[in-house]
Amino acid sequence: MAEIRNRSRSKDIQAIPQSDDEEVTDIPGNPQLQDTKALPQGSDKTTEVLDTALKDLTPRWRNWIIRGIFTWLMIFGFFFLVYLGPLALVLTIFAIQIKCFHEIITIGYTVYKSYDLPWFRTLSWYFLFTSNYFFYGESLIEYFGVLLHRMEFLRYLVSYHRFISFSLYIAGFVGFVFSLVKKHYVKQFTLFGWTHVTLLIIVTQSHLIIHNVFEGLIWLLVPVSMIICNDIMAYMFGFFFGKTPLIQLSPKKTWEGFIGGAISTVFFGFLISYILVQFDYFVCPVTYDEASDNLSMDCIRHPVFILTEFGLPLVIQKFFSIFGLSWTTVKIYPFILHSISLSVFASVIGPFGGFFASGFKRAFKIKDFGDLIPGHGGIMDRFDCQFLMATFVNVYYASFIRAPNPQKIIQSVLLLTSEEQLHVFSMLKEKLIQNGILNETLS
Amino acid sequence: MAEIRNRSRSKDIQAIPQSDDEEVTDIPGNPQLQDTKALPQGSDKTTEVLDTALKDLTPRWRNWIIRGIFTWLMIFGFFFLVYLGPLALVLTIFAIQIKCFHEIITIGYTVYKSYDLPWFRTLSWYFLFTSNYFFYGESLIEYFGVLLHRMEFLRYLVSYHRFISFSLYIAGFVGFVFSLVKKHYVKQFTLFGWTHVTLLIIVTQSHLIIHNVFEGLIWLLVPVSMIICNDIMAYMFGFFFGKTPLIQLSPKKTWEGFIGGAISTVFFGFLISYILVQFDYFVCPVTYDEASDNLSMDCIRHPVFILTEFGLPLVIQKFFSIFGLSWTTVKIYPFILHSISLSVFASVIGPFGGFFASGFKRAFKIKDFGDLIPGHGGIMDRFDCQFLMATFVNVYYASFIRAPNPQKIIQSVLLLTSEEQLHVFSMLKEKLIQNGILNETLS
Repeated sequence: MAEIRNRSRSKDIQAIPQSDDEEVTDIPGNPQLQDTKALPQGSDKTTEVLDTALKDLTPRWRNWIIRGIFTWLMIFGFFFLVYLGPLALVLTIFAIQIKCFHEIITIGYTVYKSYDLPWFRTLSWYFLFTSNYFFYGESLIEYFGVLLHRMEFLRYLVSYHRFISFSLYIAGFVGFVFSLVKKHYVKQFTLFGWTHVTLLIIVTQSHLIIHNVFEGLIWLLVPVSMIICNDIMAYMFGFFFGKTPLIQLSPKKTWEGFIGGAISTVFFGFLISYILVQFDYFVCPVTYDEASDNLSMDCIRHPVFILTEFGLPLVIQKFFSIFGLSWTTVKIYPFILHSISLSVFASVIGPFGGFFASGFKRAFKIKDFGDLIPGHGGIMDRFDCQFLMATFVNVYYASFIRAPNPQKIIQSVLLLTSEEQLHVFSMLKEKLIQNGILNETLS
Repeated sequence: MAEIRNRSRSKDIQAIPQSDDEEVTDIPGNPQLQDTKALPQGSDKTTEVLDTALKDLTPRWRNWIIRGIFTWLMIFGFFFLVYLGPLALVLTIFAIQIKCFHEIITIGYTVYKSYDLPWFRTLSWYFLFTSNYFFYGESLIEYFGVLLHRMEFLRYLVSYHRFISFSLYIAGFVGFVFSLVKKHYVKQFTLFGWTHVTLLIIVTQSHLIIHNVFEGLIWLLVPVSMIICNDIMAYMFGFFFGKTPLIQLSPKKTWEGFIGGAISTVFFGFLISYILVQFDYFVCPVTYDEASDNLSMDCIRHPVFILTEFGLPLVIQKFFSIFGLSWTTVKIYPFILHSISLSVFASVIGPFGGFFASGFKRAFKIKDFGDLIPGHGGIMDRFDCQFLMATFVNVYYASFIRAPNPQKIIQSVLLLTSEEQLHVFSMLKEKLIQNGILNETLS
């Protein structure tokens, strides 16, 4: 969420012991932490150049400008990824997921000073691998099952996907039990929990984001840009008009920013939705087209993306009649109405993802999750609200938008043996005749 | 897992701080802990009577007898539940799940001395409620969707199930953020993680157990009894022949017990499988029968429950021919072969669930998860291996046994509108003719 930070590039992760009243010890010379910070992150040089250029400004304004520049860089980067298409987006989501996992796990290692835990780093990454193997496999099978089934060598992986995933996980679980060392039991179990909660938050939710992409790019772009809009506008409103503190957890957030952000986001939602629904590229699900042997972005539009005539409520009709207008109906894309639900969630509940992250950072006495993006902090600092939003969109889509997909039912039949296909066909025929839906002589 | 414990009924949960080198502090007078222990558990009196009757025996033998008596009580209780049918079993699984959650959460509260955390107890139970609401709903919709759809007032709950579940969860999440208090940040986030890992282990896995019940009672009974058999036999073999320690984590476990348990379990698996496959009651999935408006336990048997002729390998044929026998084939229920996979898992990987639980108990310096069952400890002490086993069975079933279910495909079609049903029918017809499976003139 929008916050003004006077950031120094010193190591600001501090290890604190579990008990609240013990003193906070700094561990600047920590080798493990140095390791992760020493990874090439490609942004230090840019900030140095900027720092020199902006050295005459007050820190508040300097940070404002650096943050602004990188905000625009990220927005353009995002446009470029959208231009590249769904595959590039899915790969980016995967990369972000890994970086978020890395940031949170690194905090865990630092907080619990667990540099000498046997095998633990390996096990954490192994669990990340197995859960991704499971979720990516499930997604690919769900969306591209027919394609995968055509390839002989993949058929085995598809059929036994769950068994393979489970075996991989169990190997890690057994490895964890073998890695237990009497001296470190508590730390090891704590980090086991830490790893699994991180997987629960990052991996499962990032796969919901990928599902959203597959259902049509608009289900990614609208929510993501809403959160960005809300972040920026809350920051701007807070920066210029902020007076009344909003919540203890994030002292820099204000009611003015919150409300300004919310109103802006609803209007922005109308705008972006109206623009995106014009293009099939954004509203069509990503499907595999057998004819062209390629990903297809054409479709028969879902009703929410088709201009629909709605009757106006009587009150509003009367209001218009004052001006001599006899408007009784309005033509609108239903998606634009749905965008209200999304923008309200993005600006009212979305920030709680940020509050949660703020509380987490305060609990473990860290300033940011990382320092990858100058002026913004780590990747996780930027994506804290995106995860919650993506899950909401996924659930919203499944509950209110998704139509039963005849195509998928047909595909599930076609995966059966010839005999079973015939069996299904005749059972269906019988049922339809029985229910009076199908006329026996016409069939 | 099989362990010999000299159990006193004193409170043996001790709070330890997070850091390993701090001293362990006992908290006997803790009010919260007293509360949970003061719940009527119905077994204290029995043990007192037994203790008096057995007072002349050595503690080792006294514990042996108490443990034995309660083992048999539990086994008979289990038989009675099976007799009562799937509904009683599902309710029992639900009750066990709640008790396990209670035991683990209580340990968390005790360990982190979190009696004054605002709202936390309420929030933990609320998260338990929301996750159960979600999972039970999903199961009921999957298995009894047609039935639920017939009831007008349920249709809304069914259609928007995920949205309702998500909203409930989000309310808890927002509540958690509001409950955050500066002084307790670390404890609150730690217990948030503790609660979620417990939900992940207990709630998700107990729903897999319920799915196993729905697929046929045999998928519950065989694995559960295998774990029990392995527990008992490993205990017996260890008690009488145990010499060589197996693993540092559970010093009372021996290689003799491990191997004796494994061999016994494989043979027991053959026996119990052979008995259970004789009855439709055990091998048929639990389905809702529209005709009788009741749960049905009849079915056309899955091929693994039908006597099948297998060709014997040449080596074995030759072996028999030495004795003048010309056996070339053998008739067997394929399920009995599958039971080998299950019993091997139950006796080789299953114990790791127990090792994990042992390590956990050692980490937090507790002797047992609770004291509900005299001679055994808490419910969680008895079910530590069952969870892992149930997940294995679920995955095994999904990967190797589950046949595509034409009935379910038909049902998914019947949930569509009449027009869509006709659309699916004609699309299917077209595809089948196109693939040469259906003859146009005959259809």
